[in-house]
Amino acid sequence: MTVVTSPLSQAARKITGEALQGALVDLIDLSLVAKQTHWNVIGPRFRSVHLQLDEVVATARTHADTVAERASAIGVSPDGRAGTVAKTSGIDTVTDDWVKDTEVVNVLVAALGAVINRMRQRIDATAEPDPVTQDILIGLTADLEKAHWMFQAESV
Amino acid sequence: MTVVTSPLSQAARKITGEALQGALVDLIDLSLVAKQTHWNVIGPRFRSVHLQLDEVVATARTHADTVAERASAIGVSPDGRAGTVAKTSGIDTVTDDWVKDTEVVNVLVAALGAVINRMRQRIDATAEPDPVTQDILIGLTADLEKAHWMFQAESV
Amino acid sequence: MTVVTSPLSQAARKITGEALQGALVDLIDLSLVAKQTHWNVIGPRFRSVHLQLDEVVATARTHADTVAERASAIGVSPDGRAGTVAKTSGIDTVTDDWVKDTEVVNVLVAALGAVINRMRQRIDATAEPDPVTQDILIGLTADLEKAHWMFQAESV
Amino acid sequence: MTVVTSPLSQAARKITGEALQGALVDLIDLSLVAKQTHWNVIGPRFRSVHLQLDEVVATARTHADTVAERASAIGVSPDGRAGTVAKTSGIDTVTDDWVKDTEVVNVLVAALGAVINRMRQRIDATAEPDPVTQDILIGLTADLEKAHWMFQAESV
Amino acid sequence: MTVVTSPLSQAARKITGEALQGALVDLIDLSLVAKQTHWNVIGPRFRSVHLQLDEVVATARTHADTVAERASAIGVSPDGRAGTVAKTSGIDTVTDDWVKDTEVVNVLVAALGAVINRMRQRIDATAEPDPVTQDILIGLTADLEKAHWMFQAESV
Amino acid sequence: MTVVTSPLSQAARKITGEALQGALVDLIDLSLVAKQTHWNVIGPRFRSVHLQLDEVVATARTHADTVAERASAIGVSPDGRAGTVAKTSGIDTVTDDWVKDTEVVNVLVAALGAVINRMRQRIDATAEPDPVTQDILIGLTADLEKAHWMFQAESV
Amino acid sequence: MTVVTSPLSQAARKITGEALQGALVDLIDLSLVAKQTHWNVIGPRFRSVHLQLDEVVATARTHADTVAERASAIGVSPDGRAGTVAKTSGIDTVTDDWVKDTEVVNVLVAALGAVINRMRQRIDATAEPDPVTQDILIGLTADLEKAHWMFQAESV
Amino acid sequence: MTVVTSPLSQAARKITGEALQGALVDLIDLSLVAKQTHWNVIGPRFRSVHLQLDEVVATARTHADTVAERASAIGVSPDGRAGTVAKTSGIDTVTDDWVKDTEVVNVLVAALGAVINRMRQRIDATAEPDPVTQDILIGLTADLEKAHWMFQAESV
Amino acid sequence: MTVVTSPLSQAARKITGEALQGALVDLIDLSLVAKQTHWNVIGPRFRSVHLQLDEVVATARTHADTVAERASAIGVSPDGRAGTVAKTSGIDTVTDDWVKDTEVVNVLVAALGAVINRMRQRIDATAEPDPVTQDILIGLTADLEKAHWMFQAESV
Amino acid sequence: MTVVTSPLSQAARKITGEALQGALVDLIDLSLVAKQTHWNVIGPRFRSVHLQLDEVVATARTHADTVAERASAIGVSPDGRAGTVAKTSGIDTVTDDWVKDTEVVNVLVAALGAVINRMRQRIDATAEPDPVTQDILIGLTADLEKAHWMFQAESV
Amino acid sequence: MTVVTSPLSQAARKITGEALQGALVDLIDLSLVAKQTHWNVIGPRFRSVHLQLDEVVATARTHADTVAERASAIGVSPDGRAGTVAKTSGIDTVTDDWVKDTEVVNVLVAALGAVINRMRQRIDATAEPDPVTQDILIGLTADLEKAHWMFQAESV
Amino acid sequence: MTVVTSPLSQAARKITGEALQGALVDLIDLSLVAKQTHWNVIGPRFRSVHLQLDEVVATARTHADTVAERASAIGVSPDGRAGTVAKTSGIDTVTDDWVKDTEVVNVLVAALGAVINRMRQRIDATAEPDPVTQDILIGLTADLEKAHWMFQAESV
Repeated sequence: MTVVTSPLSQAARKITGEALQGALVDLIDLSLVAKQTHWNVIGPRFRSVHLQLDEVVATARTHADTVAERASAIGVSPDGRAGTVAKTSGIDTVTDDWVKDTEVVNVLVAALGAVINRMRQRIDATAEPDPVTQDILIGLTADLEKAHWMFQAESV
Repeated sequence: MTVVTSPLSQAARKITGEALQGALVDLIDLSLVAKQTHWNVIGPRFRSVHLQLDEVVATARTHADTVAERASAIGVSPDGRAGTVAKTSGIDTVTDDWVKDTEVVNVLVAALGAVINRMRQRIDATAEPDPVTQDILIGLTADLEKAHWMFQAESV
Repeated sequence: MTVVTSPLSQAARKITGEALQGALVDLIDLSLVAKQTHWNVIGPRFRSVHLQLDEVVATARTHADTVAERASAIGVSPDGRAGTVAKTSGIDTVTDDWVKDTEVVNVLVAALGAVINRMRQRIDATAEPDPVTQDILIGLTADLEKAHWMFQAESV
Repeated sequence: MTVVTSPLSQAARKITGEALQGALVDLIDLSLVAKQTHWNVIGPRFRSVHLQLDEVVATARTHADTVAERASAIGVSPDGRAGTVAKTSGIDTVTDDWVKDTEVVNVLVAALGAVINRMRQRIDATAEPDPVTQDILIGLTADLEKAHWMFQAESV
Repeated sequence: MTVVTSPLSQAARKITGEALQGALVDLIDLSLVAKQTHWNVIGPRFRSVHLQLDEVVATARTHADTVAERASAIGVSPDGRAGTVAKTSGIDTVTDDWVKDTEVVNVLVAALGAVINRMRQRIDATAEPDPVTQDILIGLTADLEKAHWMFQAESV
Repeated sequence: MTVVTSPLSQAARKITGEALQGALVDLIDLSLVAKQTHWNVIGPRFRSVHLQLDEVVATARTHADTVAERASAIGVSPDGRAGTVAKTSGIDTVTDDWVKDTEVVNVLVAALGAVINRMRQRIDATAEPDPVTQDILIGLTADLEKAHWMFQAESV
Repeated sequence: MTVVTSPLSQAARKITGEALQGALVDLIDLSLVAKQTHWNVIGPRFRSVHLQLDEVVATARTHADTVAERASAIGVSPDGRAGTVAKTSGIDTVTDDWVKDTEVVNVLVAALGAVINRMRQRIDATAEPDPVTQDILIGLTADLEKAHWMFQAESV
Repeated sequence: MTVVTSPLSQAARKITGEALQGALVDLIDLSLVAKQTHWNVIGPRFRSVHLQLDEVVATARTHADTVAERASAIGVSPDGRAGTVAKTSGIDTVTDDWVKDTEVVNVLVAALGAVINRMRQRIDATAEPDPVTQDILIGLTADLEKAHWMFQAESV
Repeated sequence: MTVVTSPLSQAARKITGEALQGALVDLIDLSLVAKQTHWNVIGPRFRSVHLQLDEVVATARTHADTVAERASAIGVSPDGRAGTVAKTSGIDTVTDDWVKDTEVVNVLVAALGAVINRMRQRIDATAEPDPVTQDILIGLTADLEKAHWMFQAESV
Repeated sequence: MTVVTSPLSQAARKITGEALQGALVDLIDLSLVAKQTHWNVIGPRFRSVHLQLDEVVATARTHADTVAERASAIGVSPDGRAGTVAKTSGIDTVTDDWVKDTEVVNVLVAALGAVINRMRQRIDATAEPDPVTQDILIGLTADLEKAHWMFQAESV
Repeated sequence: MTVVTSPLSQAARKITGEALQGALVDLIDLSLVAKQTHWNVIGPRFRSVHLQLDEVVATARTHADTVAERASAIGVSPDGRAGTVAKTSGIDTVTDDWVKDTEVVNVLVAALGAVINRMRQRIDATAEPDPVTQDILIGLTADLEKAHWMFQAESV
Repeated sequence: MTVVTSPLSQAARKITGEALQGALVDLIDLSLVAKQTHWNVIGPRFRSVHLQLDEVVATARTHADTVAERASAIGVSPDGRAGTVAKTSGIDTVTDDWVKDTEVVNVLVAALGAVINRMRQRIDATAEPDPVTQDILIGLTADLEKAHWMFQAESV
């Protein structure tokens, strides 16, 4: 069923759609991981890290919504269901227990690093087929790399 | 490791902790299902349903945060990871394709109905062990039942 | 016609529905009585009482909306029509002329007292059949009793 | 008892006072009818009509307050009690049950039409005796006729 | 020097200009008298009257600005200087000492009464030559008569 | 097709509808002319005139929306399409090049003067058939004449 | 006359200037067409479509202002006059009568589709000569394609 | 002197009044202790703890006001004077010198723990005599237990 | 009649009271002169000067209120009546006609200069008798001297 | 332990520290006394006095925070504990029962008078050792004397 | 010391780091130059230019922060110290005296022109090594070129 | 060239002008140093210190603007250029590399200490020649000393 006609060619839409679907899953999982650690962090830096994680949640949620609606706009149905996220996310599973603040910082450095790595590939992949989507991916990668720097600066 | 001393007895904490953990998973999945249909809904009522679903997302996210932090407050580490949500949610999986607006309304009626049913049981279960938690569950159930009415009214 | 399926049993829904319908009528009439005296009050305390009455109006309107939508949420069609209010309100009719400020304070003490008395009974009646509705009634009674205290304090 | 000296002659005050009293009753009843249908509407357009009705409520309440205070300002005690509204409103009684959205639209078209008709007569009646009151009636009639158009546009 | 070409005829402009100049002076003096009593009021109702007077100041200042700019818009230079106000205001001079709250209420009833009386005449005078100006005068008279009612209600 | 029943008689509706249609076209063109000069103005007073023009745009857009919806409210379909504006506007065409600030001021004085002239005629024409529409035209003419004064004051 | 020195070469400025001028006309016409249908839409989905169209108006106006000022910034005088819009817009003329809601949705799908098509070409054309302008065109195309998706989703 | 008639029986009022008076004193002292440490905290975590303490102050002040006004509403005069607080608070006295951040966290864990313990008893005590008061105590205990968790998480 | 007991000695109160009364009159007149020129300014800089004058009005009104209430606070009844202002202001009378923008700037430079001069003397006079009043005068003089600089900078 | 190096000499710091510690205690007690009477006031002026007292609370709390942090800034640990306030406040103890509004006004006149008297001495004492602290004390004394005037004006 | 791991290769990071460091210095100096002229501008256009310069300051400060944090995010320590700015800025030194408004406009045209020229080169340089950084530079260059146009338009 | 006539004598203006010029340079450099460390700070307290530094930036920028405009107001042209700041600032140069959080705290303690020391001297120097300027310097010194305490408290 062709619900939304795409401004892109068939091929361009396929590449772009995959990039967006991948970005969507990574961003939803990033928001879930950041919330999970937001609730379970312990240690002297609790309050600072707790607040910082909620900023990651806000960033991840905003961008997830943007990429999902971008997928729809190019005629690709996005999939952000829990099962899909659990199966295809680029982020390693985190523990289901209290976590020390120093460890939480490491978890976020790793999670953001993994997502950024995949986003950089999506930026390259979409340059040709859809500069509009690429521009969205560039913008959100800037935000992720800024968050990545901050957690790295904290882990010194 | 006892990280947070509980204001509750061992037994009360166990019952209450399970109620909160169950509520957390249901609410996170409700937010994901509402977003999924928010992005994939089609049909003449698209705009109205699209907006209504985002109100469900906002409600579900706010209450998810409250119950997770309530779990922490009674000394129980909450688990809101994608895998846990995928495995233990009380909501049926939705399709990964475009969905007609009439169908979306039915999906939400069912999803809210399932969650409300479980919340009602949690309200009963926590009455004795922790009236503070019960009060939180009562408050969020009022919101869910209001949303449930609205989608039902729409499906007439 | 069953429009909205109730989360309550038949019996629980009947008791709760009656409590909500009664609360709705009382709150609408309270808002009308407070507006009536807001417009007709005279005397040296005019401005203070005039403003205070509008706070009662705001409180009554907000809670009226909540209880009416709660009725809908448990599958009971609410009735807030002028005729129903005129016939079933728990508040005595007020005069249709200018009223002295001291007299207005007495009118409000009596009106709030009557409504609070009935609300207290509804709190008792709904405890068993629907703790969600009871919680709403408890919350609004707290507001009404606060307003009641203020008018009493003024009538000393 | 002459509480407020009128800026109008005895005769002008009588005509103007009656126009304002009639407008007050119509506007209060419009707000009650709009709320009643706001709570009881069902059908696929539920959400849209539900929201639209609350805009009518807000408009009706604001103008009711203005005309009541205008009555006071010309020395005429306004009467907005439930019984008075039930007896003298220009709007037909609505049902005390769930109402289909298409029917709600018709109810509002009729209610607004009836009130507008009477307001037009009041505009004529007050032109001579009090242009200040007439200007208020003209302003609120513009709002009612705009709402009337919208419900008519919806009933096509 | 013709600085601003008038949308009105020579004669219409003269009548309208005089009405606006008179309104300007009355409104500026009303703001000064209200401030004077705002600072000098004493007695048990101090706070209420003190606040009420500042609302009169705000109303008077807003309307003064509107009528002055309306004069400019019809090509008539407005005059709102202290000397002009002192000489041509329609409001009686108030005392330069502390004033009892009951007395302040009387002063405002008288001042507003005097200004309203003159505004009513200006409404009549401008009906023919400039309905745009008349509409402005009608609007501000509604506000003044509302304030007049409130102070009268307080002096009962 | 009678879509919206008019509160006016056939004849009154015709006159009023023409007045509103004319006002709509003039106001849309005023907004386009003001934007055109907002973008193309040059000279030492660039910033001040650039900002002032955007205030004209905002005023024109707001009133255009009001008169178009008023036309709908009296049962007359409004026409604000580019072609209609280009053909029936009362404002002279402006240049398609950079314009000196002094010249822009003259252009606006002329444009506002032309529109005001036509609005004054519409105020006269609608007095009898529809005082509600007339009141809207009076209100927007006050704003246009205020803007007219300001540009004239600047061209001295 | 060289008013604004361009940061671009003569050739780059010509290409970029044409792209911006074309974009300006399309966006102004989009805002006029959306307003025209905003006022004339009828049918059961009136309210939803009416509101949705005003969001298109807001988007189109904001971007029109940005591209016009971008033209000025590269030394090209923009032309957004009614006549120019009527003659060079890429959007088909719409009817001057009431339009059914289903038809309005189709009109917008077509109008947005036509504009997006031309914007995609402008994105290609400006990539080389001016990446700053291209980035602006990319950003606004994302918004247009999002709106396009929404109207398409509604027309299923 | 019976100033405010109680909605409660004599016995219920006595129990409830004592619970509220105790809660009032604890909350005022909590606000004073949190401010005291807010001003005197030193150490590397100064800023974070300093800010966190002000959140405790805000929470304590808000709830203190609520319970005091609730006491008045049930006809019991509340006592929140410095001497009463000093004598009857459930919180241990803190030092009058600079305090290390780690120590401040311990002080707050202990202070909140003590207050929560007493609040839990008050929740039990008021369940029967006044569910309205109990609901207020339940709500504020949720906030205190959340703050308690946070300081505990920080002391790991 | 001693209405307000002064925190100052008889002598200190006299000196301070005179300084405040003088400041009050100057500030009220400054606000009237700035409004007068705000309405009557003409010339190419109309808009800029018109806006700048309203900032002077706002500053003068705020400080006038502060000094009048300060007079009351030290037990001296302030006098801000039109006649008193006309007779005792330190600012020269301005013309009652349109004024060129260049001339308006000169008028303000002179008016502000005169008021600043007198304020500087009041700062000296109150240093000993009342540092609290002096601090208020110092604060407002800073604002006046800032405005003075701006008008001087404009008159170069 | 020297935690914070003082910008003042040893002697200056001692005098200034004592002035700030005294001011802190007085302001905290003022806030507690104002709250105590805010809750316990009765009589016809209840609402007005109740609101006025909360303004005193807000003022006292803001300034208490400022002086405590100023003490820290000059290297003196502030002491705002309940016991210290109870023992060293300059304000007389108030009753622990309902208080008539007229009496409350007298209580506040006395309390403010006592605090102002001590603040005036602190202003003198700190002039030499620390003009920065003196400036803070001058500023808050202005607020206290304004509040003092208002309660005095009310007690006439 | 590798503090922040870069998402870029060694070579890409070097080029991008230099572009960002150069941009940072230019933007800080632009903010200082704009402030310097903001304080020292004189002449009839003082107010307009004074305000316009503060908009440049705000723009420059926001973008300076963004590029500095972008440098950190790619693992390059940014240098925005006064000495570095003084030595490496691309903007010519301005005078340390009052400056005529016409001259200030020229200074800004030159300063913006110089910075834009260098930014254009940085856009080219970073296209390959880091499209994320390039996107940031493109965005800020759009703002600078808009400001450049405005000052040029003013210098005609 | 005498651009702005000074309210001060020649000698007073010289002393005051030098104090303000010195304050300006110190405050600008404080803002640059705080930004430099805001970007380069690393270590576990990164987030807290990063945010705290931006508060210093905001404070320093606000006061820099005030003292520069105060200089203009007394007829002295302020100099806030990068070169002047680099040469005459009272703050030691900081490193151009990443800095550990503990070191950043020391840097700020030293920088604030140096600036406060010089500000104290300027407060003394301006007491006689210009109390208006002195009051500004006193006010900003209070803010700097508060920030100084906070960084000291953190370095314990």
